[in-house]
Amino acid sequence: MTDLMKAVIAEDGEALKLQDVPRPALGPHDVMVKVAAAGINRADLVQRTGNYPPPPGASEIMGLECSGTITEVGEKVTRWSEGDRVCALLAGGGYAEFCAVDEGSLLPVPENLTLLQAAALPEAMMTVYANIFMRCTFRKFESVLIHGGTSGIGSMAIQMVKAAGADEIWTTAGSSEKCKAAELFGATRAINYKEEDFEEIVKSAGGADVILDMVGGDYVQKNISAARVNGRICNIAYLNGPKVELNLIHLMLKRLILTGTTLRARPVEEKSEIRAAVEEQFWPLVASGEIRPVIEDTYDFDEAEAAQALMQKGGHIGKILLNVAKGG
Amino acid sequence: MTDLMKAVIAEDGEALKLQDVPRPALGPHDVMVKVAAAGINRADLVQRTGNYPPPPGASEIMGLECSGTITEVGEKVTRWSEGDRVCALLAGGGYAEFCAVDEGSLLPVPENLTLLQAAALPEAMMTVYANIFMRCTFRKFESVLIHGGTSGIGSMAIQMVKAAGADEIWTTAGSSEKCKAAELFGATRAINYKEEDFEEIVKSAGGADVILDMVGGDYVQKNISAARVNGRICNIAYLNGPKVELNLIHLMLKRLILTGTTLRARPVEEKSEIRAAVEEQFWPLVASGEIRPVIEDTYDFDEAEAAQALMQKGGHIGKILLNVAKGG
Repeated sequence: MTDLMKAVIAEDGEALKLQDVPRPALGPHDVMVKVAAAGINRADLVQRTGNYPPPPGASEIMGLECSGTITEVGEKVTRWSEGDRVCALLAGGGYAEFCAVDEGSLLPVPENLTLLQAAALPEAMMTVYANIFMRCTFRKFESVLIHGGTSGIGSMAIQMVKAAGADEIWTTAGSSEKCKAAELFGATRAINYKEEDFEEIVKSAGGADVILDMVGGDYVQKNISAARVNGRICNIAYLNGPKVELNLIHLMLKRLILTGTTLRARPVEEKSEIRAAVEEQFWPLVASGEIRPVIEDTYDFDEAEAAQALMQKGGHIGKILLNVAKGG
Repeated sequence: MTDLMKAVIAEDGEALKLQDVPRPALGPHDVMVKVAAAGINRADLVQRTGNYPPPPGASEIMGLECSGTITEVGEKVTRWSEGDRVCALLAGGGYAEFCAVDEGSLLPVPENLTLLQAAALPEAMMTVYANIFMRCTFRKFESVLIHGGTSGIGSMAIQMVKAAGADEIWTTAGSSEKCKAAELFGATRAINYKEEDFEEIVKSAGGADVILDMVGGDYVQKNISAARVNGRICNIAYLNGPKVELNLIHLMLKRLILTGTTLRARPVEEKSEIRAAVEEQFWPLVASGEIRPVIEDTYDFDEAEAAQALMQKGGHIGKILLNVAKGG
């Protein structure tokens, strides 16, 4: 009759550890998910430093996505039932045995995927959709530049724009091994940024209509240069910092859009719209195996410290997952 | 039997003067306009310095808009006839007795306006429409910040967003006299930028959904700060320069769009779309007198030097016009 559960707790200066904490409360529009696995996201590392606090009302526990099985549904929930296999976008709380999720943030796990695999999908697919397809209004036959082509986001972005009929798909990565992987995901040209200049390569080939960037810093000016007339450039992070020196004249002369978004802070209604569009347009391709989760490694529930350390180190290709069902 | 006409010619380091030049050729989709008046635009001053050359195929003569009477129509032209009173957006060539204009860039002059008044409308109305309504997707009940509220563009932008149902209309201007004028055009709050901080005023009042800027420089960061979540910021010039130091973190966290456009370099098809939208949505308001051309002063055809000097000086409220029908 306990209301406790295990969750990964971050205390200042200490390694992540499992601890008993209260189970989350179930709202009328929520389902309770017994978590099978949680995706590790770079934002978790930033949250741990105190620089990306959870939005008001969200769990203090890390974890922006999870998969699992529904154990209970709120009184207003109509679509979902106990026992359903789901994966979910979260505002927090994924590194835990149980998670309460707004029903608008849930996706059904297709039969061809394990729960572990499904945990790799929600944050990456919804981020790519919200930025490349909604904010940047990507259209078939357009050309795309995706930075970080072997990151969780990058590997999914390449697959999604390929499936949606992109013309050129340029991507950047930091080694020849990563470049090979990115081309396997569908990139038409992977650029090793340690040896080649993406700005020159993309610009001389005609320029990109849409650019997805998480690097920032001096990439912002280079993105403006690499964009085609009416191009859209979207930042989902600034790993090299948000402070930039820019000459904006070509932003105006080429009629570009420079924008950026985050998912976490949006109202649940917007997340629900994004989720519905992903389910309609891309979920059939997940179920058919055309779009696949790319997973670097999985760690047991009590190994969250090592999982985050791997992401911090940066050599991974695809997602890093926390196998919450194991090692707790 | 002459094919010559008078036009304003700019020679390096010399005052503008009238000179005989060949009349423009009439293409199958063009009409020939006997020019009554031409609007002076700041871009003309930049063109004169060599920094804004005409796009390929455009006249070398200055002048981005004119009004007048049709004297001849190209063989593919269906809508227009000899004798029609028109005003037009031009890629160049307005400071001249005759001008050949693509039929997609023409608007009929309503009966309540003189040809002189009509010359004040095309560039301002189409620029405002292309930027605030199309690029920034302004919607009724949104709040708007318009810099340069007494410029030709600013005075028209205020009237157009007011007519379209804007909530707050903030604007900036450089004197209390200009601020009074901007409030007469419809601004709900004119900010004297020499005495007040627009960033603080707009931000503390909730922020702007759409910001139209021609200042650039340190205004870009202030615009980012003054914008509301999902706000759109559009530059149509950078009078204080396009080189800026920015912190883009709030561009991402507030999911803003930073963009800019020019009209002149666009294909005629796009100009025709903008023109059609202006005619459908705003021309009835011009014909009814709800939207009025704001004119600071008019100069005779042989006074172009003085007309441009007035714009350079910057004390004007509204448009400065060249009365091509007089003094030639």
